[in-house]
Order: sequence, then structure tokens, then C-alpha cells
Amino acid sequence: MADLSINSGLVADILVQFVREEVLKVGAKGVVVGISGGIDSALSARLAVDALGSAAVTGMGLPYRESAKSSRDDADLVAQQLGIELVVIDISPQIDAYFEPFPKATPTRRGNKMARERMSILYDHSSIRSALVLGTSNKSELLLGYSTLWGDGAHALNPLGDLYKTQLFQLARHLGLPERVINKVPSADLFVGQSDEQDLGFSYELADQILFQLIDERRSPAEVAELGSAPELVDAVWRRVRDSQFKRRPPLIAKVSARSVEQDFRYPRDWGH
Amino acid sequence: MADLSINSGLVADILVQFVREEVLKVGAKGVVVGISGGIDSALSARLAVDALGSAAVTGMGLPYRESAKSSRDDADLVAQQLGIELVVIDISPQIDAYFEPFPKATPTRRGNKMARERMSILYDHSSIRSALVLGTSNKSELLLGYSTLWGDGAHALNPLGDLYKTQLFQLARHLGLPERVINKVPSADLFVGQSDEQDLGFSYELADQILFQLIDERRSPAEVAELGSAPELVDAVWRRVRDSQFKRRPPLIAKVSARSVEQDFRYPRDWGH
Repeated sequence: MADLSINSGLVADILVQFVREEVLKVGAKGVVVGISGGIDSALSARLAVDALGSAAVTGMGLPYRESAKSSRDDADLVAQQLGIELVVIDISPQIDAYFEPFPKATPTRRGNKMARERMSILYDHSSIRSALVLGTSNKSELLLGYSTLWGDGAHALNPLGDLYKTQLFQLARHLGLPERVINKVPSADLFVGQSDEQDLGFSYELADQILFQLIDERRSPAEVAELGSAPELVDAVWRRVRDSQFKRRPPLIAKVSARSVEQDFRYPRDWGH
Repeated sequence: MADLSINSGLVADILVQFVREEVLKVGAKGVVVGISGGIDSALSARLAVDALGSAAVTGMGLPYRESAKSSRDDADLVAQQLGIELVVIDISPQIDAYFEPFPKATPTRRGNKMARERMSILYDHSSIRSALVLGTSNKSELLLGYSTLWGDGAHALNPLGDLYKTQLFQLARHLGLPERVINKVPSADLFVGQSDEQDLGFSYELADQILFQLIDERRSPAEVAELGSAPELVDAVWRRVRDSQFKRRPPLIAKVSARSVEQDFRYPRDWGH
């Protein structure tokens, strides 16, 4: 078993510093973050509060009418504990208006539409507040492609993207997030009863082990299987990583000039500051 | 004056080949492209038709109730000339539902919301068709940041992103796009009477000269002014390029591990294929 434990104190310090620097450097007045009631967004918001103070952090609850009532309660709990404002906007009218002519749309289509609607609202409110949109995607989700392209994966900065889901639990306990939020079943909450691990077909605990060995330790799938993981599971994880690379890279631009955006012309994101 | 003329025949060949390769490589069945009635989307769609045949290209007209009637007519004209299906979805119900509590929302807020709604719908329909979303952003827009982040700038592949707006006119004439579409005033058509050049405060003709000298020829703003452009204009263009870098780069992820997404872990977009 690979050891995925982190030095929570040190990691928290680095992430708080990251949020503070990146927000202040570009002259933003704070951050806007979607609060789902889950552990990832609670953690992201907490790091932002430690970085900028609670007045500079706006939480947004963006429920659909089928979102679990318990999620709304948990979002309230998180906002209360952090002392941040929680702006709640029901996304049902827009979503329902769009799907009215498509009553047979699959849960995946509906879920992706909701994720993009939430992104769109977070950006709208960030512009009102001269704030940045704070991301909440973790490394497990990013590598497995368990996210909506230009939806939950679209934000300005993300303090959690280099930590596996199982490492987020460690960090959340260290920071004293509400036990109720830490202990609930991870879910994208895009439809009733959804569970990340059911969608994926494996647990984060097993997946994180495999991902760590594949990505961080640069082992081949065969080596990872030899280390003790079930070969079918290693294959399933590896396939997800390869098939979702398009979600982790910017759009392709056909090159026809000497200096092309994202190819030869690629200063850092905060180059102008 | 820098010479921005292109070898239209060669460039068209390269772009058609680019679209064909990238779509077939990932096993997609075609492309979905928003057809606004403007020259950029007409050109993108035309290249896709040449690459894949008209049956593999789905045009989408996504008007808001304030979009110009002439834009809809021009979108029809483009679809007809290319022989592609045009799926029309009015985005007004969703947009109006969202802004109902915010009657004083600025045109910019409304325009950004619409651009993101269009992206969201293009992606929804691309998933139904196992197709890729084809981009229509040109190099002038990309460098000036004249686009909505995760809106019109969000797509899978973009044949136009390395061509300046003035070069698109050359290409469009070469390919015989409708004169009415080529000759109209460039507009994002997000509100009545909008014009790109009015929004920007300068013409594409002047901006493209300056951008080419700054970016492709790697000259300093002072050198560009010495070559004959008005210094205030060079400054205005240069400021837009610097201030919009965040739109051209993926979100920042705080690095806390040995191998981080987009930092050490960064295979090409089509790595899995």
C-alpha cells in the first residue's frame, strides 16, 4: 500500500498562502465558491476564509429542485461555521425551461447542464463582486475525469486539485470541518441517490492507491497490478485517466502562424500582474 | 505596414485536414457548431463540411429574443449554402428566468450569461450526436480577450484560432462564403446594435497590424509605435492582451505533490487515442 498521508498543517499553510497570493496579485476583492454541502467545497471555502477573511468569501448554494434537502442543510451548516454569506439561487427554472422539449433527456445530460449552469452563475456573481471563482475539484476527480467539462472544472484557481479525495478527508479533519459533512457519502448530487463511487464503479480508497502509483510514482498498469491491486480495476482506472485527458487540456487550435495561442504564445495565467 | 495576407488555398487545406484528423482520431461522428450568421462561424462550419461532409456537421442557431432578425436570416443562408442541418433553440426562456430577479443586470452580464448558455447547449447536443464542439474564435479575439471565458471560447477544437480577423476575410472570399455574411459589421450580437469595433474602441484592421507586430514579430510596444501606429492605440491593444491572459490559460492548481495536473502531468489533449 502506498502511503498517501499528508502533513496536513504544512499543506494547509501552502494552500492558504496560494489562495491569498493569487487573489491579491490580480487585485480581486475576494472569491466566490459554490457550496454544495459536500466536503470538497467546504474545504475550499475554509482555505479561502483562512486566506482572505470570511467577509471576502461568498458562498453560493445552487440547488436544483431534486437536490437533497440534506445537502441544503449541510451547505447552511458550512456557511454558518465559516461565517460566510450564502447566496442561494434555485437553478430549476432555467434547467426545466431548457429540458421542456426533451422530456426523455438522460440524467447525465441533465447533470452536465446543471454543472454548467452553476459555473455560469458563479461567474456572473464573481463579476458583480470583482471576485474570482474558486474551484473545488480534487486530484482524484481531475484524473478520473469525473467532472463536467466547462462546468465544475471551470474556475480561476483551485486549492484542492493536487490532493486526492482520501487526502481531503485528512485535511478536513485537521481543519475541524463538521463531522456530518466529512462523513457523508460523496455525491455530485445531480440526481436523487447519486453516489460518486457507484458512478465510478470503485471506491476512492482503491482508486487513489492506483492513481498515486500510476501518476505520482509513474508506474505502468502492470506494475501497479503486481503491487497488489486487481488488474481489472487498474485497467478501469487507467482507461478513465486516458479517456478524460481532453478535460484537462485547453481546446486544440490549428497552427498556421509563427506564434500561436497556447503553443508558442503561453505566458503564465497571471502574466499581466 | 506588416503584410498579413495569407495563402488562402494552402491555409484552407491545412485547416480542413486538421478538422478531419482531430475528429476522426477520437472516433467522433462529426461536429456541432453554433451558427450566428457571422463570418467566423460560417467559415468554421464550411471547413468542417469540407473535412467531413455536410451530413456530419450540425449547425445550431441559438438566438435570444433580442438577437437581430437579420442574424437569423444569415444563419439560415449559411446553413442552406453549406447543406447542413440547422437546429434552432431560443435561449430566451432560460436567460429571462435567470435575470428575472436582477432586472438591472448590465448588458455585459447578460451577454456573458448568453455566451455560456450557448456553450452549454452546444455541448449537450454534441453529446447526443457523439460529436465534438467546433470553435469559432479567431486570433484577434483570443489575443484581445474579446470573448466570454468558458463561453464562446470553450470548445473541443478550433480551426480559426491562429488567424487574425482580417485574414478570415481573405479566407472567406477564397472559399466563396455569401457576400452578405462577409460584408456585415462584425458583432457579438449580444444586444441590439452591438459592434465589435465599437466595443473594442478600435478597428480590427488597425488592431491586427499591431497584434501581428507585437505577437508574431515579437516587437515591443515602443517599436510598434515607431513603425507608425498611434502610441495610445498600441498601449490599448497591449493592455488588452496582458489583461486577458487568464482567458487563454487553464485554471491554476496549487502544487503540493510530485506530479500535478497541468504542471508535470500534461500529455496532449488526444493522448489516449
